[in-house]
Amino acid sequence: MSYAVVVLSGGLDSTVALWSELLTATIDLRLGPTIEERCARGVTAVTVDYGQRHRREISAARAVVECWQAEAAHRMSEGRRAITLDHVIVEAPSLGHVLSGSALTDQTIAVPHGHYTAPTMVDTIVPNRNMIISSIAAGIAVARKAERLVLGVHAGDHPIYPDCRPEFVQSLQHCIQVGTGTRLHVDAPFLTMTKDQIVRMGADMATPMNLTWSCYQGGNKHCGKCGTCVERREAFSLANVSDPTEYEE
Amino acid sequence: MSYAVVVLSGGLDSTVALWSELLTATIDLRLGPTIEERCARGVTAVTVDYGQRHRREISAARAVVECWQAEAAHRMSEGRRAITLDHVIVEAPSLGHVLSGSALTDQTIAVPHGHYTAPTMVDTIVPNRNMIISSIAAGIAVARKAERLVLGVHAGDHPIYPDCRPEFVQSLQHCIQVGTGTRLHVDAPFLTMTKDQIVRMGADMATPMNLTWSCYQGGNKHCGKCGTCVERREAFSLANVSDPTEYEE
Repeated sequence: MSYAVVVLSGGLDSTVALWSELLTATIDLRLGPTIEERCARGVTAVTVDYGQRHRREISAARAVVECWQAEAAHRMSEGRRAITLDHVIVEAPSLGHVLSGSALTDQTIAVPHGHYTAPTMVDTIVPNRNMIISSIAAGIAVARKAERLVLGVHAGDHPIYPDCRPEFVQSLQHCIQVGTGTRLHVDAPFLTMTKDQIVRMGADMATPMNLTWSCYQGGNKHCGKCGTCVERREAFSLANVSDPTEYEE
Repeated sequence: MSYAVVVLSGGLDSTVALWSELLTATIDLRLGPTIEERCARGVTAVTVDYGQRHRREISAARAVVECWQAEAAHRMSEGRRAITLDHVIVEAPSLGHVLSGSALTDQTIAVPHGHYTAPTMVDTIVPNRNMIISSIAAGIAVARKAERLVLGVHAGDHPIYPDCRPEFVQSLQHCIQVGTGTRLHVDAPFLTMTKDQIVRMGADMATPMNLTWSCYQGGNKHCGKCGTCVERREAFSLANVSDPTEYEE
């Protein structure tokens, strides 16, 4: 029995979504008549290795999960409660070869530089990526009897990515419910929020945003030039939150 | 550019669906003003290794594809045309561990015996399986600019599996179209057909049904006792088609 399943890419948005879920679930532990039952449940983070060029984000996801696990152990050592967090990494790297035609999975296509909303960013579309990842996470959610599936998609993704729009989330939930015969709720709390609002919220919750990874290049540091680096920088700046990211330039 | 993408499990239904697609596409090669363009396209079969207990079906899928490839080579050596067939096997065996709770992926749960429509068959439900597999196949279809995604789900699956019902196929198509910004058509030609009608159709098209695999047990021969073996036997019998399957009993 799981409290919720959160899709965690290792990027900024999904990490803030996960942190919000963990803090809410932890507060929830103190409420209501079913504390023991609630304690037995936990949050599950699901990360899919689809052969992405920026596989660095998978280790970022791992670091974020370990950060909560350490935090929870610390809280519990002080006699406080904390929701448990489990990490499922689904390995399907061969997907990268077959979902070709995107700069994120095809090494022969350059990652475009410039602003995140520029038309060149269509090169970073991985066909049907969010539906594939969400379907897998929904299967896990149903297997674990979770009531909610949480996605970190946000308003800034809409212009380029059709699978980040409200109508997609709505039809995704419908398809999952019909296909599994459950009432699994798909929750996309950032659907109408901008990335700087997410950074602001992340900072308010002391989310370990320093551990997250955005850059679409496969380097050791954030390149600072690709669309998602430009967007990340801009979001910290607009939110007036100190950016913990080390950029190459 | 692909003519169509067909989800091929290696079972009877998806193999007959594939064969129908291949024969139709081959006939189509002779029609219309765009013969060269049509020749350059081909059909893609997609098989997903999700860690199923009956992994034997994956080699069955491979044998079916090789059968058409040999047939096409033969036709072409005689100066006739045949559509090309490409096989994509997506490896995600770790899915089996996380989609637990089904007899098909969890070795600790026994595969139920008896009739296919019996209530015990709910043990063979893999949560959200068809949505996961269809999402992956849809991503491949979009990457290959296919117009159609073909699924072999049939009417006999409806009582047990929610993800084989007409409303699921409809909502699946909607979700894919919204999520990919395409008009990809999801075609489930057997949605209102019974399995014996599929066997009849398969026999009429000389489909290599002898190469297909149905049994949910992991053995070398069809067990003859599990729900899907019972259904397979019954379908050949009702269709009055000689059953090429070797059963253990």
